[in-house]
Amino acid sequence: MTRIDHYDDPDAPRANSLVPSANVVVVNDDGDLLMIHRTDNDNWALPGGAMDLGESLIDTAVRETKEETGIDCRVTGLVGIYTDPKHVIHYTSDDEVRQEFSVVFVARPTGGQPTPSSETREVMWVDRRVVDDLRMDRSMRLRIQHYLGGRNTPYLG
Amino acid sequence: MTRIDHYDDPDAPRANSLVPSANVVVVNDDGDLLMIHRTDNDNWALPGGAMDLGESLIDTAVRETKEETGIDCRVTGLVGIYTDPKHVIHYTSDDEVRQEFSVVFVARPTGGQPTPSSETREVMWVDRRVVDDLRMDRSMRLRIQHYLGGRNTPYLG
Repeated sequence: MTRIDHYDDPDAPRANSLVPSANVVVVNDDGDLLMIHRTDNDNWALPGGAMDLGESLIDTAVRETKEETGIDCRVTGLVGIYTDPKHVIHYTSDDEVRQEFSVVFVARPTGGQPTPSSETREVMWVDRRVVDDLRMDRSMRLRIQHYLGGRNTPYLG
Repeated sequence: MTRIDHYDDPDAPRANSLVPSANVVVVNDDGDLLMIHRTDNDNWALPGGAMDLGESLIDTAVRETKEETGIDCRVTGLVGIYTDPKHVIHYTSDDEVRQEFSVVFVARPTGGQPTPSSETREVMWVDRRVVDDLRMDRSMRLRIQHYLGGRNTPYLG
């Protein structure tokens, strides 16, 4: 499945779907961040994904982190809520065009080992001083910068 | 349209829909809370409703508050994120069964006058000392209690 992110793009396809999702900043004792290297668009990203019926959004955060990284985690806080209508994500395989809806949590690892999956070619703990050097989608970079900036209140956008 | 809320009910219909929505605790200079008396189930509630494509969740909060109460507002903070899979809402007219997904914001009024609509038979500023005496759905009561409890961090459930 190919994923294309559009920002404030007059030629972007019109959103036809709204899917609540969670992303997770998992932080270990050294302050490193758990990052995945995506197979669908070659970017680095925080683990995360769409909410399923029957689970809470925190359940989603924990489940997606486990599936994509092999790491168990416990949610400890909130970075922000990201719902910018100017950011749409086009899945070309079925022409779904999602409007961004992501809640970004902070979590601590509680077990497991970094393990790639079909969605993730690499899983790494990345030093927070160099995480910004990775190739990343602009929305992911913003979320990580909000976490690293140490805001006292969640971002609401 | 009739709305029936189910909690942890083994006989509840199975959720078939997930619709992100916003609710708003609008607080005036006296510390009163803006409350609506719903037409669909006779309960009192915070203003709010479902997110539309093309708007941010904060846009939703402001738009729904205006539509349901006549009051303009500006969002100033977050009470919490409520996504309990054991809470489902059955709309009997078309058998939609939504799993709860509400983000609850705090806001300040910036204009307008309390004005009922087709969805709201009464709109009132309610003294925070007596708001808990109103007839309310259990999830709405919880959200208001979280706001009045003055939590330092958002509720994540």
